[in-house]
Amino acid sequence: MYPKSINNLIEAFKYFPGIGEKSAERMAFHVLGLEEVQTNFLADSIKNAKKNIKHCKICNHITENEVCSICEDTLRNKDYICVVDDPKTVISIEKLGTYHGYYHVLNGLIETLDGINPEDIRLDKLIKRIEEGNFKEVIIAVKPCLEGEMTALYIDNVLSGMNIEVTRLASGIPMGADMEYVDAITLEKAFDNRKKLS
Amino acid sequence: MYPKSINNLIEAFKYFPGIGEKSAERMAFHVLGLEEVQTNFLADSIKNAKKNIKHCKICNHITENEVCSICEDTLRNKDYICVVDDPKTVISIEKLGTYHGYYHVLNGLIETLDGINPEDIRLDKLIKRIEEGNFKEVIIAVKPCLEGEMTALYIDNVLSGMNIEVTRLASGIPMGADMEYVDAITLEKAFDNRKKLS
Repeated sequence: MYPKSINNLIEAFKYFPGIGEKSAERMAFHVLGLEEVQTNFLADSIKNAKKNIKHCKICNHITENEVCSICEDTLRNKDYICVVDDPKTVISIEKLGTYHGYYHVLNGLIETLDGINPEDIRLDKLIKRIEEGNFKEVIIAVKPCLEGEMTALYIDNVLSGMNIEVTRLASGIPMGADMEYVDAITLEKAFDNRKKLS
Repeated sequence: MYPKSINNLIEAFKYFPGIGEKSAERMAFHVLGLEEVQTNFLADSIKNAKKNIKHCKICNHITENEVCSICEDTLRNKDYICVVDDPKTVISIEKLGTYHGYYHVLNGLIETLDGINPEDIRLDKLIKRIEEGNFKEVIIAVKPCLEGEMTALYIDNVLSGMNIEVTRLASGIPMGADMEYVDAITLEKAFDNRKKLS
């Protein structure tokens, strides 16, 4: 029904998760209303990101070079390595400005039911890095879910023979949360991990 | 914090309405996961749509040519012209397959408070087309809102001297609606426009 250029655009926008026919149509019409300098910037940014972004060969974080700027920074604290499952988490932690150690980005989490095993998320690369490095503490900051817990326990297990501390970020009630809306699993965790006040 | 290619992409995605920092980040990371053939298709579709899509010089509908396929079709019913304020409405009506007349797409709706007057939405072009054509009925299918009603009344007023019928699509309760959630204005319209059953 639409001219071909619009149909193509609608189909292309449906690549995005959660974008159905209607939203894709709305986005396509929005593109028509943009200035040409904007549509060029949008289109070129897509091509450039795909072309330029690689994974750091040391920590697997996203980078435009062989090694990311964090791994290249020799002034960081060599005692700590923080394990995450998503490059976005690295950015969130860096924004805090309080952690100065290194990172390791896993290719996902162990999901035994879906057949995702330790080798699929390249845990071997992390283990090798820890064996060869001089880290004193591995801080596990993967997503707090069943798969995250499983991955954390697996790492703790593998490293148990080595002289290194393995810690996990605290789970509990988020600051400012409305108690009424805190889910049962989080509340249970918060009870289990309760701390003495003084 | 992100590599430049990702930052650019995040900025570009924020062109879309309702897309904030977080959603733009999610979309950017999704792009990295696409195949190169897909990112090329997406980027090229954006550029091509912007380059190729024009407005039909007769009815103002979107087209890749000077005149759209509907205006070019001499087999359509020359008695009817349907006035809409959005090319997407043309597509919705065409999908029904029951209307075979012509269309006219306004450049928006009259909004006196925002200073959008009849000349801004090119109503003159519609009036001229009706004056010069042989239409028997103008079917107004603009959005059912205050601005839509104002625009409909204005058109009716301007055409009142001419020998042409001006109609407006019926307002009322949508089929399958839950009565409990029908808004007050719609319910009032539905009462005002109630019809005898036999």
